[in-house]
Amino acid sequence: MSPPVAGEKRPALVTCTAPVNIAVVKYWGKRDEKLILPVNSSLSVTLHQDQLKTTTTAALSRDFTEDRLWLNGEPANIEQPRLQTCLREIRRLARKRRGERNGGDEEDTPPLSYKVHIASENNFPTAAGLASSAAGYACLVYTLARLYGVEGDLSEIARQGSGSACRSMFGGFVQWVMGSDADGKDSVAQQVAPETHWPELRVLILVVSAEKKAVGSTAGMQTSVKTSLLLKHRAEAVVPERMAQMIQHIQQRDFEAFGQLTMKDSNQFHATCLDTFPPIFYLNDTSKQVIALVHRFNAHHGETKVAYTFDAGPNAVLFLLDETLEEFVGVVQHTFPPKSNGDQFLKGLPVKAASPSEELLAEVVRDPIPGAIRYLLITKPGPGPSAVDDGSCHLLGEDGMPGSSS
Amino acid sequence: MSPPVAGEKRPALVTCTAPVNIAVVKYWGKRDEKLILPVNSSLSVTLHQDQLKTTTTAALSRDFTEDRLWLNGEPANIEQPRLQTCLREIRRLARKRRGERNGGDEEDTPPLSYKVHIASENNFPTAAGLASSAAGYACLVYTLARLYGVEGDLSEIARQGSGSACRSMFGGFVQWVMGSDADGKDSVAQQVAPETHWPELRVLILVVSAEKKAVGSTAGMQTSVKTSLLLKHRAEAVVPERMAQMIQHIQQRDFEAFGQLTMKDSNQFHATCLDTFPPIFYLNDTSKQVIALVHRFNAHHGETKVAYTFDAGPNAVLFLLDETLEEFVGVVQHTFPPKSNGDQFLKGLPVKAASPSEELLAEVVRDPIPGAIRYLLITKPGPGPSAVDDGSCHLLGEDGMPGSSS
Repeated sequence: MSPPVAGEKRPALVTCTAPVNIAVVKYWGKRDEKLILPVNSSLSVTLHQDQLKTTTTAALSRDFTEDRLWLNGEPANIEQPRLQTCLREIRRLARKRRGERNGGDEEDTPPLSYKVHIASENNFPTAAGLASSAAGYACLVYTLARLYGVEGDLSEIARQGSGSACRSMFGGFVQWVMGSDADGKDSVAQQVAPETHWPELRVLILVVSAEKKAVGSTAGMQTSVKTSLLLKHRAEAVVPERMAQMIQHIQQRDFEAFGQLTMKDSNQFHATCLDTFPPIFYLNDTSKQVIALVHRFNAHHGETKVAYTFDAGPNAVLFLLDETLEEFVGVVQHTFPPKSNGDQFLKGLPVKAASPSEELLAEVVRDPIPGAIRYLLITKPGPGPSAVDDGSCHLLGEDGMPGSSS
Repeated sequence: MSPPVAGEKRPALVTCTAPVNIAVVKYWGKRDEKLILPVNSSLSVTLHQDQLKTTTTAALSRDFTEDRLWLNGEPANIEQPRLQTCLREIRRLARKRRGERNGGDEEDTPPLSYKVHIASENNFPTAAGLASSAAGYACLVYTLARLYGVEGDLSEIARQGSGSACRSMFGGFVQWVMGSDADGKDSVAQQVAPETHWPELRVLILVVSAEKKAVGSTAGMQTSVKTSLLLKHRAEAVVPERMAQMIQHIQQRDFEAFGQLTMKDSNQFHATCLDTFPPIFYLNDTSKQVIALVHRFNAHHGETKVAYTFDAGPNAVLFLLDETLEEFVGVVQHTFPPKSNGDQFLKGLPVKAASPSEELLAEVVRDPIPGAIRYLLITKPGPGPSAVDDGSCHLLGEDGMPGSSS
């Protein structure tokens, strides 16, 4: 697809969407703060955009007087250093590409001197505590690349926006290879398997009733790298082997092994947070109750049917196979009965309401905690970023401003 | 002191007391389950018996028909393997000692063939979740040694009752040297400094409102040793250096360094619990609030005024200097206002009720949580086990049975 054409009056407009990803081998800690180079490789599952996505529209016009940004409809600061890095890198590639072609701006693409307008929004509430910066930066970089006619691997640029954003540049199962180059050119994302690879895999997000915001991940990582002796050991001695194992488990669709390693790696990440000084806690008592529930459920079945992972917050992301979904959702509903506040408790992919057996409930449900889980979002692995051809989805109108489109 | 004499009718009776200790370099994990040999050395502060102690009376009589045990007044199972180990080891030493002297039983001590009655009780509720097995086994071994006329280092025997019990065999600051011998002969406790070494040091125990019992430490350690890669690294690469540092900080009475390392080591112990599979959580949300409060309090003062440590449970044990006590107790009372249930909130050493400054309260007190802390126990480092000469303190009467003494 060639870049859009800027007409006399109308801006060149591109709209794209990008997914959230959830790491199963965790990224925590940078060896280079500026280039966002990690202390270890990581691996994630890209979640389906039907449930969770960022949409970004970017526009270029001779009429724009300055670069501008809107997030979820509100004006935002485009001067953020990381955003500026992404913009600068994309423009640099565009310049290089055009220079290679004909030594300057092309007639059929907007001049690089045009100012850019960017609008971005999520189809899920920011308050849900689902990592949105990965999808946000992936979408930004993907959209800008389209707008400026840049091709090739963009994960290295997305990485400089938000480390884990590089993994949102692909669908399915994606590794972020830490690399060794000082300039970060080899610290890139690679698809391990496409989203179609494991069709039975489901992802269940348990959104825990909000508490106050914990330590942000950027600051948290810095403190961990500085103070945690265990993080250093994890990065150097534990993760390399786990990466190889995890890739193999995914390739073999071995849920037992995939699930066990996913849980262990989540626990180890949170252990390094606790070994940080001052310590960082992302799991709260509800998170711990979810962990205990999953272990009881698996113990009941004598195998790993459900696996949890937690990022820098209390929400649980659970992996399970389609065949387990109904029963486990029933167990969650019994353990964390929704408060009757009129909100929908089950969101995302449809699931039949199943009543787990009395025996199962007796064995795995302990002291129900009404309201501890706000809602459940059911999703599955999904594709990477893509362009939206439907013009009605643009977040910027023909005047290059938000709120004026349909 | 020579062992007691068993008269015609009256049993030979010995009563001793022993202290609780709290580790500042944590013990977690055995390299030998049977001999209770640890994967790393550890270091603790012995707490004063005025606030926390175990009292044990042991008696020998020709009239006793079997070995018997009472715990807190209730008959208990004396067949527990670890208790049997302690009893067997003390009897072995007694036999050896007598054999060396005159080849058999002495006239002035009860024959080794006599059965033993043992009664033990704590001056604090078991429900408080304060590690009582260390004090319990230290007291048992110390008392039996007196009864049987055994002398010398008994920490190796106490260790076989409950690992950390060996550290309760001394007062003040005590290290448990892990040793390297296969038979455990060099895995013993040693006093680093006596209880008089740091007279300003105070210990504040925040007893958290009880939750259900978590994973027991014996089972927890086993799982950690089997599954935690971080524990292995901690034991091998982190603790040796920390032991040397901690001994130095104590010798120099350097509260800043002592407090920082104490907190870091507690956090790392809990990190290895979280890295265990399935993960073990001993800290609950109240524990985390105490941790955050301590860090805010220290940040306010620009130095480490208070240091926390947590064992296998949610109760916080805090170290601080006498000069900080009043102010910090005031802060705790504002952060965790006692529920007016008539119970005493401040126990142990007397403390004047001080009102911290408005500025301090504004900076460090967040969202008070009434009732989250049941009570505060104020104590300080104290001496090791000792014999009680006052006959009215015996837990067994002249008939060798509990409940019949004054």
